[in-house]
Amino acid sequence: MPRLPRHDILFEPVQIGPKTLRNRFYQVPHCTGFGVEKPWTQAAFRGMKAEGGWAAVCTEYCSISAESDESPYVSARLWDDEDARALRLMTEEAHRHGALAGVELWHGGLYAETRESRLPPLAPSQLSSDFDGITVPRVMTPADIRRVQQEWVTAAGRACDAGFDIVYVYGSHTYLPSQFLSPVYNRRTDAYGGSFENRARFWLEAIELVREAVGDRCAIAVRIAADTLEGSGVELAEGLEFIRRADAMVDLWDVTIGALAGWQRLDAGPSRFFEQGYQLEWSGQARQATEKPIVVVGRFTDPDRMAEIVRGGTVDLIGAARPSISDPFLPRKIEEGRYDEVRECIGCNACYSRSIWGRHLGCTQNATAGEEHRRGWHPERFERARNAGQTALVVGAGPAGMECAIVLAKRGLELVHVVDAGDDIGGCLEWVTRLPGLGEWGRLIDYRRVQMARLPNLQFVPGVRLDADGVRDYGADIAIVATGARWNADGMNGITRAPIPGAGEGLAHVLTPEQVMVEGLRPPGARACVIDYEGYFTGAGIAEVLRAEGREVELLTCFDLVAHYCDQTLEGVRLRRRLHDLGIAMHRGATATAIDPEGVHAADEFGRPFRIACDGVVVVAQRSSDDALHRALLDDPDALAAAGVEGLHAIGDCVAPRLIADAIFDGHRLGREIDSPDPSRPLPYLRERPLV
Amino acid sequence: MPRLPRHDILFEPVQIGPKTLRNRFYQVPHCTGFGVEKPWTQAAFRGMKAEGGWAAVCTEYCSISAESDESPYVSARLWDDEDARALRLMTEEAHRHGALAGVELWHGGLYAETRESRLPPLAPSQLSSDFDGITVPRVMTPADIRRVQQEWVTAAGRACDAGFDIVYVYGSHTYLPSQFLSPVYNRRTDAYGGSFENRARFWLEAIELVREAVGDRCAIAVRIAADTLEGSGVELAEGLEFIRRADAMVDLWDVTIGALAGWQRLDAGPSRFFEQGYQLEWSGQARQATEKPIVVVGRFTDPDRMAEIVRGGTVDLIGAARPSISDPFLPRKIEEGRYDEVRECIGCNACYSRSIWGRHLGCTQNATAGEEHRRGWHPERFERARNAGQTALVVGAGPAGMECAIVLAKRGLELVHVVDAGDDIGGCLEWVTRLPGLGEWGRLIDYRRVQMARLPNLQFVPGVRLDADGVRDYGADIAIVATGARWNADGMNGITRAPIPGAGEGLAHVLTPEQVMVEGLRPPGARACVIDYEGYFTGAGIAEVLRAEGREVELLTCFDLVAHYCDQTLEGVRLRRRLHDLGIAMHRGATATAIDPEGVHAADEFGRPFRIACDGVVVVAQRSSDDALHRALLDDPDALAAAGVEGLHAIGDCVAPRLIADAIFDGHRLGREIDSPDPSRPLPYLRERPLV
Repeated sequence: MPRLPRHDILFEPVQIGPKTLRNRFYQVPHCTGFGVEKPWTQAAFRGMKAEGGWAAVCTEYCSISAESDESPYVSARLWDDEDARALRLMTEEAHRHGALAGVELWHGGLYAETRESRLPPLAPSQLSSDFDGITVPRVMTPADIRRVQQEWVTAAGRACDAGFDIVYVYGSHTYLPSQFLSPVYNRRTDAYGGSFENRARFWLEAIELVREAVGDRCAIAVRIAADTLEGSGVELAEGLEFIRRADAMVDLWDVTIGALAGWQRLDAGPSRFFEQGYQLEWSGQARQATEKPIVVVGRFTDPDRMAEIVRGGTVDLIGAARPSISDPFLPRKIEEGRYDEVRECIGCNACYSRSIWGRHLGCTQNATAGEEHRRGWHPERFERARNAGQTALVVGAGPAGMECAIVLAKRGLELVHVVDAGDDIGGCLEWVTRLPGLGEWGRLIDYRRVQMARLPNLQFVPGVRLDADGVRDYGADIAIVATGARWNADGMNGITRAPIPGAGEGLAHVLTPEQVMVEGLRPPGARACVIDYEGYFTGAGIAEVLRAEGREVELLTCFDLVAHYCDQTLEGVRLRRRLHDLGIAMHRGATATAIDPEGVHAADEFGRPFRIACDGVVVVAQRSSDDALHRALLDDPDALAAAGVEGLHAIGDCVAPRLIADAIFDGHRLGREIDSPDPSRPLPYLRERPLV
Repeated sequence: MPRLPRHDILFEPVQIGPKTLRNRFYQVPHCTGFGVEKPWTQAAFRGMKAEGGWAAVCTEYCSISAESDESPYVSARLWDDEDARALRLMTEEAHRHGALAGVELWHGGLYAETRESRLPPLAPSQLSSDFDGITVPRVMTPADIRRVQQEWVTAAGRACDAGFDIVYVYGSHTYLPSQFLSPVYNRRTDAYGGSFENRARFWLEAIELVREAVGDRCAIAVRIAADTLEGSGVELAEGLEFIRRADAMVDLWDVTIGALAGWQRLDAGPSRFFEQGYQLEWSGQARQATEKPIVVVGRFTDPDRMAEIVRGGTVDLIGAARPSISDPFLPRKIEEGRYDEVRECIGCNACYSRSIWGRHLGCTQNATAGEEHRRGWHPERFERARNAGQTALVVGAGPAGMECAIVLAKRGLELVHVVDAGDDIGGCLEWVTRLPGLGEWGRLIDYRRVQMARLPNLQFVPGVRLDADGVRDYGADIAIVATGARWNADGMNGITRAPIPGAGEGLAHVLTPEQVMVEGLRPPGARACVIDYEGYFTGAGIAEVLRAEGREVELLTCFDLVAHYCDQTLEGVRLRRRLHDLGIAMHRGATATAIDPEGVHAADEFGRPFRIACDGVVVVAQRSSDDALHRALLDDPDALAAAGVEGLHAIGDCVAPRLIADAIFDGHRLGREIDSPDPSRPLPYLRERPLV
C-alpha cells in the first residue's frame, strides 16, 4: 500500500539557509551516552536513522570548551581536532544515507559542574546551582564573554571541517545563553544585564559571530525555549522577541520549552503525564516571530497529526528524539505507507535513564538501539539463521517471549510457536498497562501483534499451560522458556533480606500486585497501605488504583524518595505531586516490621517505630523468577535429549526479573544469537576504548 | 635527620609466596575512576606511589567478566588481551620503581548492575539489590559456578602475562564470594549453600583453581572482610574460619571489614566518625587464623602507630588507600626521617566522591593526585619557573593562597609574600576545622605550615588587610588575589533564586555561619533553626554546635536528604543518625518562605506551608565570592601597569566558592602554570579516548 496522499506534505524538501533537507523529518539533538567516547557507536546509531529516512540527524549537546563539562554525564565535545575526527565518522555515515548532519554546540554555564576539568563553571551572575547547592559559578567578565563567544566560533569551524551541515548556537534548557537571557539567572548591571536588549546581547553576538565565521558552509540553527517555564525567567513574550531579533542570522529555529530545574515540563515529557504534542501550546507559537523553518518535538508518531501541524503552518519540520530511537525507520515506513509497522515510542523514558550518568543508551521498544555498532544489530534487517531448518517453541508470550519469537521467525526458522497459558499475548504488560498513566506502554504489544500476524512461520497458541512433559512432547527442536516472574507474597525482599512478618499466601488482608491487577482482589475495608520496596512504577500505580476506588491509601517506601527510580525517567517529581494531590499519605525511608489485620508496624530511617492503621495491605516487595518449568527441563537432560530437544534456553524475567526494556532486549539477543556456538551465552560486544 | 631506629621494622622486606615486598608499605586496591579507560593515567598514578616507596601498588577492583560490570562506576577490567595491554603500562611503571604490582580480580555478583552489558547480575540466590530495588539477580546454576571460577582463572592468567606479581581472589565488600559465604545472601540448598562448608565452597574452589593456574608466577592474595557487619551475615568467627580453611593456598591476606550495604562501617571510614586504625577491632584478629602475611588498612599516617601494630605481631603490612593518595611518598619520607613532610590524609573522602560515577579522582591534601599523567604534575618535584626572577604577592592565606604560594616558592620565584588580614594562615579552615568532627581537616594547615616555614623565599605577613592601593604599592611583579568567599546574609541562593524575606545584615536573630563561628555571635533564646541550602558540612555542623550549647535545634533543608552531599563522602548515613541522636529535628525537601523574630515560615515539597517556632536562625544559603579587591585591581589596568604589576590573577573561592579540594587545586594550578603564556587560563590537559 502506498502512503496516503495527505501525508505527501511530510516528504517535501525544506531549504535551511545553504542546505536542503530532503523531507520534514528531523532528528533533533538528544543524549545517548556516546559523545566522542564511543565514536563508532555514535556514527552507527545516527547513521541508522539516516538510513531510515530522516532528513537530518544531530549529535547530542556538544561542548565547545573544557569549561563546559557535565561529567559524568556524557556530552559530545569539539575541544580539539581529535574530537572533530571522532565526529567525522558520524557525518560520513549521515551523508552516505542522504541525510544532513547537525551538531548542537553547547556551553552549559552554571550547569557545567566541570568535575573533570576541575574549573569553576561560568555564569552571568553568581547564583549556586539548584542541582546540588555545592556548585557556585564564576561571574563572567567582559573578557570571558568574548572568549566564550570565540570558543563557539572555533568549534563551529571545526564542525564545518568535520562535515557537519548544521551548527547550533544552542541556548535552551537554561544553558548559558538562556542564563544570560533570563532575568532570574542574570543579575548583571553591565551591558549584558538588565534590559531585554542587554540580556539578549550575549547570545545575539554569539550567533552573529558564528554566522560570520561559517558563512554559507553550514546552516545555522538555534535551539531556544519559547518559554523556560518553572520560574526560570524567560517567558513566551521575551522568547518570541528574541527570535525576532536574531531571525535574520538564523536558518532554522529548533523550539523547545522548559528549564533544567525540576524537569517538570520539558521536551522529554513521559507519556504518563504528557500527550503527543503537548509542548505546542508554547513552541507552536514561534511562527508569530519568524518565517524561517521551525522544528518542534512532541513525541510525534502519528502521520496524520504530523501532516496536520505542518499544514497548519506553525511548524515546518517534525522533530523527534524518542520516536527516532524507538523507530529509526519511522520516515521511511510512513513514506512507503507501512503505517502499522511503525514501532511507536511508548514515552517511558528508558532511553533518557540509560543515556545519563555514563550509561549506554537503550530503548524499551527497540532492542537494537545503541547496539548498531557494538553488536552489529540492524532494526529492520535479520540474517537468516544457520539453523533455520529448526523449529522453536517459546513458552510465554510476555515481553521477552514475544520479542524472541519475532526475531527467530524473521531469521527464517522453519516454525516458531509461542504458547501462553493466557488468552492473549503481552504477559505482564496486560496488567502493567492498566496502571494509571501507563496505557501508552500498550504499544509494546500493538507493534508485536502486527509483526506476529505477518510472519507466516510464527504462530501464537493461547490458553495452553505447558509443563515439562508438554514441552518435551511438543516436537520443537529448540525450547525457550519465558515464563516471567511473580511478586513475592511473603514480602521477601533484598532490602531487609527477610520476609515481612504477617505477610504470606492466602491472606485476605495482604495481597500482591498480581492479586490486585490480575485476579481482581482488593484489600478489605476503607483503608489500605501499599508497602513499596521496588521504587519504580508498581507501588505508586497500585496506590493510585486503590485510591481511585475511594479508599484511604498510605504508601510506605524504604527509599528516601517515593518511586525514586522514576526520577531517572523524568516522572518522579510529577508522580509524587500527583500522589500527594490524590491525598495519598507517603512515608519514606521506612521499613515494615510486621503486618497484622489492624495495620502495618513500621520503623523510620532511625529505627523509630510507628504504626499505619489500615484494613489491608498490598506488598510490593520483590519479584521472583517463575523458573519452575525451566528447572524441571534442565534437571532432566536425558529426557530432553530423548525428546529431540536440541536447545533449551530461558529468557527474560524467568531468569532474572528486570526492567521491561531489558527483558525485551534479552529475548531479542537470544533470537539474534540462536545460531551461535552457545546461544545461552551472549557473544562479546565490541568495546571502544583507548588503545595503548 | 635519619629515621628513628624504632621505625626500622617498617622497612624490612616481606616474603609473599614467590614474591618479595621490599618493605611493609602496601597500597591496597582502591578506586580511581581510571580503570582501563584511562590506562596512562592509571599507570602514572600507581607508578608515582611506586616511586614514593610503596612495596606494592594495586589496581582498583578489576572485573573478570562482562557479567560483572558496575557501570557507570569505573572498575578496571581483564576481559580480553586488549585490557591486559592497557594494564601492562601500570605493571611496567611499578616495576621501574621497584614495586610489585597487584590486581584485584573481582566479580560483583548481585551488585554488578551490568548496565553496560545489559546482562542480569549473578548471585547465589535471588535477593534484590539493596542499592535500588530494581536489580534482581539470576540464580547461579552449577554450570555458572564452574564458568565464573574459570573466568577467574582466565583473568589471572592474563594478569600474569601483563606482568602482575599479585593476583587477588577478591571477596570482601560483600561481592560474589562473600555473597556465597553469607547465609543472608546465600539461601541455596545444594552443595554451595547451607552449612559453613558448603557456603565456603565457591570461594575455596576459586582460590584453588587460581592457585593451580598461576603456580609460582604470582603471589595469591585474598581480600576478605573479617566481619561483614551491618547484618550481612559473615561474622568474625566464620570470617576467621574461612581464613583457616583457605590458608594453605594463600600468600597474603588483605583483611577488611564491613559490607557495601549502608557503607556505615567500612575501610574508608571518614575522619568525622572514625579514628586511625578503628578497623583493627575486627581485622586485627586475623592472626588467630593464619601465620601468613596480613595487610590491614586504618588511615595510618603515624609511623609510631604503624611500627607498634607490626611489632605487636597482628599485622605484617601497613595497608593504605587514602594515605597513599594524599602522600604517594609517605614510605620514602618516613624512611628518610622526613616525618614532618608527610602530607597526612585528612579523611574527608573527597577521593572517594571523585572516583565514583565516572568522575576523575582528586584529593584535598594532594592537588597532584590524578594529575600525574594528564597535567604532568609530580607531588615532590617542581620545575624552576621561567619567570623565577619575579616576586609574587598572594593576598589571603586560605587554602588556595597557601597552596599557590608554596608552589610558587618551590618553583623558585625570587620572593613570595602571603599577606592575610588575620593572625594566622588557614583562612576559612580556621573555623571549618572547629566544626564537630572536622578537626583532622586541620592537617591541611599543618602540612602547609611546615612547608611554608622551610621555604626561604616564602614569607607570611599576618594582620595586614590590603586594599587595591596596598597591592599596587607592595612592589611585587605578580599579584594573586585569594580573598575567599562569604555566606550571604540575605539568604540569596540558587535554589529559590531569591533572598529569604526577613533575612539580612545586622539582625540579631538571623546569623550567617561566619557570624557564629568567627565572630562568636549566637542566635538569641533557647530555640534555633538552621536553614541549609548547601547540603554539605556547614549546616549540619552549625546545628551540632548550637545543639551542643544546649539549644533546641531544628534543621531545614531544601534537599531530599539532610546533608545530601555527605552521601558521596560516606558520611551521610552516620551524620543524619548523629543529628537525630542529638535530638535535632530535621525537615527535608522544604524551603524557607520567610523569617521573623518568632521563627521560620516554610513550605514542604508540595508547597504546604508550615512553621518552625524559634528565637533565632542561622542561614546557610550560598557563599558569594569576596572579589572586591580583585575587581578593583582589574578595573584599573593603567594603575596596575604604572605600579609595575605585570601579572594579576585570582584563585580559589574569591573567583568561585567551591570545595576545599578544588580551591587548593586552583591555587596549585596557578603556581604550576605561572610561567605559561596566560597563567589565568588553565593549559589543556591530556585526554585519553578512543582514536579513530
